Amino acid sequence: MIDLTNRFSRRGFVGALGALGLGATGLTLASCSEAETSAARAADDHMEHTSSPAATPTKDYAEMDSMHEAGVKAFPAETEGLGGQPLSYELDGDVKVFRLTCQKVQWETEPGRVVEAWAYNGVVPGPEIRVTEGDKVRIHVTNELDESTAVHWHGLMVPNSMDGVPFITQPPIRPGETFTYEFVAKPAGSHMYHSHHNAAEQVTMGLLGAFIVEPKDPSTRPAYDVEYTLILNDGPLGFTINGKSFPATKPLVAKRGQKVLIRYMNEGLMAHPMHLHGMPQLVVAKDGYPQPQPWYCDTINVAPGERWDVIVDATEPGVWAFHCHILSHAESNHGMFGMVTALIVEE
Amino acid sequence: MIDLTNRFSRRGFVGALGALGLGATGLTLASCSEAETSAARAADDHMEHTSSPAATPTKDYAEMDSMHEAGVKAFPAETEGLGGQPLSYELDGDVKVFRLTCQKVQWETEPGRVVEAWAYNGVVPGPEIRVTEGDKVRIHVTNELDESTAVHWHGLMVPNSMDGVPFITQPPIRPGETFTYEFVAKPAGSHMYHSHHNAAEQVTMGLLGAFIVEPKDPSTRPAYDVEYTLILNDGPLGFTINGKSFPATKPLVAKRGQKVLIRYMNEGLMAHPMHLHGMPQLVVAKDGYPQPQPWYCDTINVAPGERWDVIVDATEPGVWAFHCHILSHAESNHGMFGMVTALIVEE
Amino acid sequence: MIDLTNRFSRRGFVGALGALGLGATGLTLASCSEAETSAARAADDHMEHTSSPAATPTKDYAEMDSMHEAGVKAFPAETEGLGGQPLSYELDGDVKVFRLTCQKVQWETEPGRVVEAWAYNGVVPGPEIRVTEGDKVRIHVTNELDESTAVHWHGLMVPNSMDGVPFITQPPIRPGETFTYEFVAKPAGSHMYHSHHNAAEQVTMGLLGAFIVEPKDPSTRPAYDVEYTLILNDGPLGFTINGKSFPATKPLVAKRGQKVLIRYMNEGLMAHPMHLHGMPQLVVAKDGYPQPQPWYCDTINVAPGERWDVIVDATEPGVWAFHCHILSHAESNHGMFGMVTALIVEE
Repeated sequence: MIDLTNRFSRRGFVGALGALGLGATGLTLASCSEAETSAARAADDHMEHTSSPAATPTKDYAEMDSMHEAGVKAFPAETEGLGGQPLSYELDGDVKVFRLTCQKVQWETEPGRVVEAWAYNGVVPGPEIRVTEGDKVRIHVTNELDESTAVHWHGLMVPNSMDGVPFITQPPIRPGETFTYEFVAKPAGSHMYHSHHNAAEQVTMGLLGAFIVEPKDPSTRPAYDVEYTLILNDGPLGFTINGKSFPATKPLVAKRGQKVLIRYMNEGLMAHPMHLHGMPQLVVAKDGYPQPQPWYCDTINVAPGERWDVIVDATEPGVWAFHCHILSHAESNHGMFGMVTALIVEE
Repeated sequence: MIDLTNRFSRRGFVGALGALGLGATGLTLASCSEAETSAARAADDHMEHTSSPAATPTKDYAEMDSMHEAGVKAFPAETEGLGGQPLSYELDGDVKVFRLTCQKVQWETEPGRVVEAWAYNGVVPGPEIRVTEGDKVRIHVTNELDESTAVHWHGLMVPNSMDGVPFITQPPIRPGETFTYEFVAKPAGSHMYHSHHNAAEQVTMGLLGAFIVEPKDPSTRPAYDVEYTLILNDGPLGFTINGKSFPATKPLVAKRGQKVLIRYMNEGLMAHPMHLHGMPQLVVAKDGYPQPQPWYCDTINVAPGERWDVIVDATEPGVWAFHCHILSHAESNHGMFGMVTALIVEE
Repeated sequence: MIDLTNRFSRRGFVGALGALGLGATGLTLASCSEAETSAARAADDHMEHTSSPAATPTKDYAEMDSMHEAGVKAFPAETEGLGGQPLSYELDGDVKVFRLTCQKVQWETEPGRVVEAWAYNGVVPGPEIRVTEGDKVRIHVTNELDESTAVHWHGLMVPNSMDGVPFITQPPIRPGETFTYEFVAKPAGSHMYHSHHNAAEQVTMGLLGAFIVEPKDPSTRPAYDVEYTLILNDGPLGFTINGKSFPATKPLVAKRGQKVLIRYMNEGLMAHPMHLHGMPQLVVAKDGYPQPQPWYCDTINVAPGERWDVIVDATEPGVWAFHCHILSHAESNHGMFGMVTALIVEE
């Protein structure tokens, strides 16, 4: 956990980041601490008690601040369950064989908030499927829900019979059944898989995941050093990034000078304009397809069903807020929540 | 009607598509049936009863499935009324003279759902006006509603007095009056016409239509073999494509190898990210203007007032779902509805 | 005030625009009057009483029309307070020193509608900060609200400690305190400043403003003759452009042949697709960064947190409606309201 304890609290107000580490990911931010301590001192120097409020504040603003602080101090908070981890496969000849099971689970979206989710292999998002363009893929989907389902490979070009739309391309997968999808993975890019049956409910409840197809020729993609996938969702699980709400979201971490690939995917019912502080985002691909000419922005509007790939040149050290700019998806008078995370650039 | 009866039902489960046809459009899909029958068999082979549900399903999932199936079997459902058909004109010298009458009508958006609509020439969308860049156009708009109206030629460059904004460019057209618009059609592209008086109500109630201006030099536009216009709307008529909700929407049909131009137009109050299964969309124009470099996607976010032209290379045979990816505009636990159609690629 | 009195009223119906002027900006539109008078006559010629309504109108449509007319006649309506005016600075050596004070104020969004706003220096939007790329900037932010706050320089690349996120980069600025931000202004472009504490409430209540960074080398930007910034907001103040709702919004004015730069900024919670009548918009920059190839549209979807710069070639004389095309943000059966203004192109 990043120790933001007392970072800018009124009691200590020291940049106590010497021991700063990311337990969950195994990365440490020790190298960042000196800059951060300077930042804290700088902030202290920059604050003055120079005026009186126009009127005596009637609100308990200190309580509001405490709630804001508590969220930041808890970030990244430990919760039960981590979605989006790589899905392993078995080889059957030259076919990569994956297994997905649809189940109802209890899912902790933020500390103490445990809700029913419908999940692939018990996690939200479902495990990440990652293959190479041209790979033969077989995916066994077993339904242990109490209603039917089907899986659509969103963005992939598959034979019509493998497209996952009940009564159009296949019968629904009823409770207790297993349907086997088989196709050749194409095209390269950042794609998704999700339910296509009772989908407004099943997808927002958690039946979604990333399906990344690496290009056969890696030289065709832009250079990057580290990558993150951010799956956005809204609905019964709340406003989430990779199945978690702030402060349980995971930060993105990069070393100064690294290029960070971010794959945005929106599985929710609303568009989410994602704003990164501190550094611009170079937009390199839409729905897996390279943009003819990359272009810069600091806020990228990700609509439902869309994927956008961006590259951030991590030139600026520090902890940079990173959130949906529909502010009601990110902050209330109780502090930040929902679609908020951070990009941490280590020196 | 496409006969999807028993296509993937539990009773028959045969690809009974030999007689598959599109009564409404006169096209037949007989050539598609073999592929589809194979698909059905393939699906059958791919389904196994390999596991038990974690618990005995308590839901009546079979009833849910039946409702889903009924929608697909009904598609494309016959309903009364078809909007967006070409509007004929008379020539007065070199002026093309069109007539539009605004009326209240009863409009069937899906089988059995008949609602009041406000329509041009009795249909929703209003008839399509299609002329060539540089054509002299005269349009008589007669108001038979019980409130005033006016018509804005959205995307066209017209003299200010012909712009259709009451009290700014003209008086409102009161009940019983006719206003005559005259202008030279430009620029080329996919444009719209709609009410600009009490417009949040009048447009969502149906006072809208496509206004296509063909380029004088057809070589300036990208090549395509067949074209479709999809006008999106939301509001009192429901979530509609060309004035109809699934299963009463019309499928797009193409032969394998054809290039399909799709003109999206949004006349609603919400953005609609339109996702086509199976094949990418090449975005070639925005609001009628060519994009400097076409770019690929599979989901194109169409905001109110926008038009996007895309070209789909119909390389993949089959029936491909095609819908708004705000899933709550497209599917409920009763099955697909609203902004859903299909692209049918015949062998 | 633009005198649209009786412009297309039923009583006078004359283009009484001879005295047309823009009191608020000092511009006059006298040169426009001849064209406008012609337009009025043209409109009169174009209206005929050629048909009877299908039924006797039961609505009091004349009352509806009167309300629509009243809005247009009032435009641009005088209201107390004007936001977004240039913020002056003092020089401390080579540092430009600005001062912002956060206060609760009473703000008139449209004639007679006075609401509580939270404002920088008493105005909504806050005053415009405009500097040149590379300038050293110091900004003293004094909090006279009854809750804490902080300022994020949205789009600017600042040291992490100056980024304005409470408990991550600085302590919150409590009531009665002043925090001093210091940084070098970069990159060039159309940026923003706004609260980043309890932001969903503080920003929609008015704590927002434009931060324009002129390029050090002006030859790097596209040519334009006149510029306008349109800050969009929605929330407790209503649907506003630069803190005002129609008819209290200000028109954009240009002489025929001028190129008009429009900087859109969205500080609200909803996307707003901005549609200009009469002339296309050439999109030249996103979030301050030049687009690799400018592209044309007539409706540009501006999502929260985004900025889009467009250039309009003011070739068409007249008063052109200019509004959000989510029509429910722009017109009701009482007439136009909210996110509506006009581009006036003078001969």
